[in-house]
Amino acid sequence: MGDRDKALNERSRYLARQDRLRRLLHRISADALLVSHLPNVRYLCGFSGSAGLLLIQADDATFFTDTRYTIQAKNEISGATVRIAKKGLLNAAGELLRARRSLRRLAYSPAQVTVAQKQALDSAIARKVRWIDDLSSVEKLRATKDQGEVSILREAAAIVSKTFERTRRILHPGIAELDVAGEIERDFKRQGAEGPSFDTIVASGERSAWPHAHPSAKKVATNELVVLDHGAILRGYCSDMTRTVFVGKAPRRVKSLYRAVQDALEAGKAAAKPGAKSQDVDAAARNVLRRAGLGRYFTHSTGHGIGLEIHEAPRIGKGDETVLVEGMVVTVEPGVYIEGLGGIRIEDDIVITARGAEELTTAPRNLIEL
Amino acid sequence: MGDRDKALNERSRYLARQDRLRRLLHRISADALLVSHLPNVRYLCGFSGSAGLLLIQADDATFFTDTRYTIQAKNEISGATVRIAKKGLLNAAGELLRARRSLRRLAYSPAQVTVAQKQALDSAIARKVRWIDDLSSVEKLRATKDQGEVSILREAAAIVSKTFERTRRILHPGIAELDVAGEIERDFKRQGAEGPSFDTIVASGERSAWPHAHPSAKKVATNELVVLDHGAILRGYCSDMTRTVFVGKAPRRVKSLYRAVQDALEAGKAAAKPGAKSQDVDAAARNVLRRAGLGRYFTHSTGHGIGLEIHEAPRIGKGDETVLVEGMVVTVEPGVYIEGLGGIRIEDDIVITARGAEELTTAPRNLIEL
Repeated sequence: MGDRDKALNERSRYLARQDRLRRLLHRISADALLVSHLPNVRYLCGFSGSAGLLLIQADDATFFTDTRYTIQAKNEISGATVRIAKKGLLNAAGELLRARRSLRRLAYSPAQVTVAQKQALDSAIARKVRWIDDLSSVEKLRATKDQGEVSILREAAAIVSKTFERTRRILHPGIAELDVAGEIERDFKRQGAEGPSFDTIVASGERSAWPHAHPSAKKVATNELVVLDHGAILRGYCSDMTRTVFVGKAPRRVKSLYRAVQDALEAGKAAAKPGAKSQDVDAAARNVLRRAGLGRYFTHSTGHGIGLEIHEAPRIGKGDETVLVEGMVVTVEPGVYIEGLGGIRIEDDIVITARGAEELTTAPRNLIEL
Repeated sequence: MGDRDKALNERSRYLARQDRLRRLLHRISADALLVSHLPNVRYLCGFSGSAGLLLIQADDATFFTDTRYTIQAKNEISGATVRIAKKGLLNAAGELLRARRSLRRLAYSPAQVTVAQKQALDSAIARKVRWIDDLSSVEKLRATKDQGEVSILREAAAIVSKTFERTRRILHPGIAELDVAGEIERDFKRQGAEGPSFDTIVASGERSAWPHAHPSAKKVATNELVVLDHGAILRGYCSDMTRTVFVGKAPRRVKSLYRAVQDALEAGKAAAKPGAKSQDVDAAARNVLRRAGLGRYFTHSTGHGIGLEIHEAPRIGKGDETVLVEGMVVTVEPGVYIEGLGGIRIEDDIVITARGAEELTTAPRNLIEL
């Protein structure tokens, strides 16, 4: 495919997304949507920088950025008119809105706009508009991935799976958690990823019982569990995989805990298919641990969507009634955390297919004793 | 110093900061301040996690977090009462505020609270309160560092200076930008840093003309400029240093551009001293480039404060009248960006001293030809 064809393809992808969005906006009678959350901006027009604002109207889209991004916007933006704002993005968007007096009902996302930003917009618009909650319209679209997105997510997952094969070879007693994390993140970049999709977790020994432990200068020691929770960003898309290894020969108690978590993982993945609800996947994993008498040690939800963000819709948790559909990409990550003993978590990324789910992360899931 | 002495020291540091803050709040007649921005929370009570809220009142301080951080809060928090929120942090803070009816004028930072958060707070408080802008009180305090902070910032700067010495040895034609970034970030962690203070920039050839280019799979080639903009986080504090090198023998044009940027850097640093204004530092650097006929290629401000955040007060830019005082730590980073040719930026971190400024980053500033 030539560069020109590729550019046209990009353009039609963004225009198609904007049109799907317009149908959602029509339902809430919005004349326009102001998109301020950067992953949403990227999804709708391709911009990957750190200062951008997108205004979606009935028949066009306008992208605002500042002078730092003039060249980058020219290269990246597709399906929107670019305006370089001299006196602030909000001000530029507000001035455009002021001029288009037919725009009365403006949708926005109250969770993604600060009080100060809203005040600045109101003062730039300088006329009465009706602000309405966009009901997470863009997030709803983003929850279901198209084929192009799934194939990037598959590549991002392959990167972390491959890195893990290398990590298990360098993990040895005496290496600092921070060193392991540094090696992992370098390996992501070596494979062409932009970097880690979140701060890599390497937690050994008692620290493995903290679900959100940051890697420390602590050295990995013999007879310890080590939780590795990590993922790569590739062309904006995130992978997220956890593996837990044992340094030394695992005692029976650790083996039986590990087996329970692995069974919970497999049960969760088996429950994931079109038509099932998010809460069914959570319940399937949770029930395995509950039946093993470990329910109280599983202190978080079973998973979450991944895509342009490391946590996005749908949430895979108790009480979540989202119906899974083909193209959703989610994590399944049961775990147990026992103070004093340590933690075990195993996590895969899966994509919902026509009949079930396909694993994107492929590193071995059985207990590895190093 | 024993563990107990250390803990008492920490406690008095946080209490002193809270008291300085109360004097600022008194000026705006605030009964309490709700601190939601995490670097501000960390500055005032030591919490380094990702879910925390701090309420500063006239005679006490209350810290709210969720169940994931019970253990961590116990270990980290000093100078505040810890409350573990079961149904959301905003809800817990709102309930406490509801009960204390004497609190009427509540300060907050409109730029750090979303519209949705404010709505949630109002509904939990369930009585009329007067919200007032805190006028960036915490940021104002944070702009001037104490000796303990300066010494951590000095260490964080030493890490990036040392990493650069290693980077110049591994930079060679054929290595991918991403690979260089991976090596740099691994080296930060090897030296005990938590990680990079922002996504490391390695931009070569034409890409060096994009001030915010992310590293790509592009390989560094002979006769190219390479901009390396990077920094480490150490115990929460950020360093930020840019060096530009030439791969091969630099042509005259590049040498003369480089000299102009280096002169601008030195002029900026020389203008930084107690009593000078931010804009004076900016003007000193900018005038050098302007006199060299390069004014239009210097498209951003000259610098910014660094500390618990990579960009914080004061901004070193046109029209900024902040008076510099001893203990402020800022970057000075002039640059020129010429489409087709490439970019050159050189950046140091400096601390304002009693009589002038001291450089924290120390890597060589002359043009390095590799």
